[in-house]
Amino acid sequence: MGAGVIGLSCAYHILSQEPSARVLVVEKALSAGQGDTAKSAAAFRNVFTSEVNRLLADTSVDFYSHIQNDLNFPLNQEFVGYLWLLTSEMFEHVSPIIERIRKSGVALKIWEKEELTKILQGARLDVSHQDEEAKMMKLETITHALQGIKCGTIGPEKLVEFFEGEIKKMGAEIHYGERVNSIIVEPTPKLNLAREPLVWQRAMIAGVKTSRDEIRAECTITAAGGWTPILLDPLGIDSHIRTKKRQVFTLRGPKVSALLHTKGFNELGVLPLTLVPPCGIFMKPSRADNSIWTGVSDYIGRAFTFEEDPAAEDDFYTYNIYPVISHYFPHFVDVRPFNKWAGHYDINTVDANPYIFEHTGLIVVVGASGSGIMKADAIGRIAAAAHAKKDIATLYGGKHFKVSRLGVETRNVEPEEFVI
Amino acid sequence: MGAGVIGLSCAYHILSQEPSARVLVVEKALSAGQGDTAKSAAAFRNVFTSEVNRLLADTSVDFYSHIQNDLNFPLNQEFVGYLWLLTSEMFEHVSPIIERIRKSGVALKIWEKEELTKILQGARLDVSHQDEEAKMMKLETITHALQGIKCGTIGPEKLVEFFEGEIKKMGAEIHYGERVNSIIVEPTPKLNLAREPLVWQRAMIAGVKTSRDEIRAECTITAAGGWTPILLDPLGIDSHIRTKKRQVFTLRGPKVSALLHTKGFNELGVLPLTLVPPCGIFMKPSRADNSIWTGVSDYIGRAFTFEEDPAAEDDFYTYNIYPVISHYFPHFVDVRPFNKWAGHYDINTVDANPYIFEHTGLIVVVGASGSGIMKADAIGRIAAAAHAKKDIATLYGGKHFKVSRLGVETRNVEPEEFVI
Repeated sequence: MGAGVIGLSCAYHILSQEPSARVLVVEKALSAGQGDTAKSAAAFRNVFTSEVNRLLADTSVDFYSHIQNDLNFPLNQEFVGYLWLLTSEMFEHVSPIIERIRKSGVALKIWEKEELTKILQGARLDVSHQDEEAKMMKLETITHALQGIKCGTIGPEKLVEFFEGEIKKMGAEIHYGERVNSIIVEPTPKLNLAREPLVWQRAMIAGVKTSRDEIRAECTITAAGGWTPILLDPLGIDSHIRTKKRQVFTLRGPKVSALLHTKGFNELGVLPLTLVPPCGIFMKPSRADNSIWTGVSDYIGRAFTFEEDPAAEDDFYTYNIYPVISHYFPHFVDVRPFNKWAGHYDINTVDANPYIFEHTGLIVVVGASGSGIMKADAIGRIAAAAHAKKDIATLYGGKHFKVSRLGVETRNVEPEEFVI
Repeated sequence: MGAGVIGLSCAYHILSQEPSARVLVVEKALSAGQGDTAKSAAAFRNVFTSEVNRLLADTSVDFYSHIQNDLNFPLNQEFVGYLWLLTSEMFEHVSPIIERIRKSGVALKIWEKEELTKILQGARLDVSHQDEEAKMMKLETITHALQGIKCGTIGPEKLVEFFEGEIKKMGAEIHYGERVNSIIVEPTPKLNLAREPLVWQRAMIAGVKTSRDEIRAECTITAAGGWTPILLDPLGIDSHIRTKKRQVFTLRGPKVSALLHTKGFNELGVLPLTLVPPCGIFMKPSRADNSIWTGVSDYIGRAFTFEEDPAAEDDFYTYNIYPVISHYFPHFVDVRPFNKWAGHYDINTVDANPYIFEHTGLIVVVGASGSGIMKADAIGRIAAAAHAKKDIATLYGGKHFKVSRLGVETRNVEPEEFVI
């Protein structure tokens, strides 16, 4: 279920590992990657505090480079870097974490304020204590920045195109415009009573009922992101995630363009994906449309909901984002979004690592927690291993990964501290 | 929020520990304990595989004995025992678990089939392989039983009466018939914008909006059981539980009465609360109305839902419960329920231990997972310690308990294997 980037990666790796498998992907949208994959800010990073998240992202990023460089399939993967702007308090807090991540082999660079001031032309890193607005927002002077090197942006539509093309070549069928209405639970023995499965029956997932058909399968896999609870709640199977709306706004103009083309951070001569304190507003460089995309994760007060067609809110930009970014980056003064959209995160609120588990014959792949595109390859490999009932998955580059680490009872992950 | 047994216990222990506290309990029903507390099968046990569950139940059971014996407030606490009937396969599986639990000091007794046959007059412990119905239901011969001694039944309405009376004496106010419509999130500074709190504002829970009023509090506590997600989802705070309907059916008749008055298991000369394989159907002795109550937890296919007024389903008894219990206990042949009702479990699907955590100034007490009445005292003590910002709670009898063990990030519990 689901032809987003995760579902397609699952299909790709199942077929790669078991070429004789018959795979059918069911997708309610009319083409691939039209759900939350398309709504993503589409950046990638290998900078995570959780070893598992790091491994999933790092090997997936390598695989995407392999697709782009060795298979000559352009994914618009650009290593612009991630840049966390830090106040002195934040810098102090993350310093030990930075050391820990660096020791694990992640390339990081620390910037001092002086250098930042030179490179980020027109930025206002200092916060004056006379500034009433800054005081109200509790803004503080930016004293440092942390740059992740193996980080950047990617074209999710290209990645989806790659996976979709490959699985078609390998014989997968894809049904677009077909909505899964329910998951079929099959009791043994089947007595055709209204309330089956009964407590004393063995129950197994046998497929799905869709808007068009009843589809029976030996193995059913959900890769439905934020929609997963709607599929699983009627079965009484916990998806272990909660769904939240996330919004993206795109900004342009002469000054925005100047900021976009900031030189000094990377070979491409563009601003890295930059995170602005105090609350992690992101600014993503988009060379294709000469714009900067922005958004931020809101927590308290943002309901858990799944909407078929979520909408971005003008107010959200105006009150949450604009006052902060226009303060540090006057490039944005009076700039209003020229485009906006919204999607969902399927959030694991406990440790912000994905879940891959089997329940009653159903394989549930969920909980990418906002970093699904950058981890899709590894997640697909682990799901394929789960499908083949293997204990160990081999990630791109040869690293081994114990499938049970992403399970429920067998879970073995560190909670992620670098949530965006 | 909530004048069920958990909410009242929280209020009781907060006032016991902090007599100067001003406590207001808000309850949508017209009196105390009318929600899922009233719908419970109202049994208690100290037989759990999770040390935490054991500790919470064991000390609460002791406190209830103290109320009944030392304070002379009858709670209808009867130590009839729990009796798990086991097939040989089940016995083999649980034997090492039994040893582990026994080592922790829990009084247990193992019964052999021969003795059981003598005591359980009229029961049919053997399953014949010629029996087509038994074969279809995969019933197996009962070869052993495990009896928990410090287990039994209690009157939740009496427990509620005790807590309610005491908190009123200590000055608590209780508003009945007042429904909490929303929890108030207060941003700092308050700007009176429509979408507050904004991401750069500090947000704190400031109280609740009810059907009658806006109530502001220094500390807000939810003890709303299965209703908790409905309160917390709009805030985007994960309650970490899922809610499921659970049903109780009551049975009587001359043969049922004979089974009820089975002698040999306890001093009261009644059947213990008995669990029937293969799926843990319970039979609870109810001396007050000369009946046996029954029910069972269904998993796959039973949706996660919260209903204001859940109804028990005749079909559920007929197809899930009747064929099994009437097979082992012909006392039930042709016996239909004379009463039935339904309530909810607020289930922690990961470890089946409760949650007590603070989030944005809100204390969330939830996840009793079907054993709330038997743990309510300990849960109230831990919630009171959380309210007083203490790290350690003192349970009845003097045992110390680290509050953070029931938290989210700091969680330290073993998953429960003896789920009913």
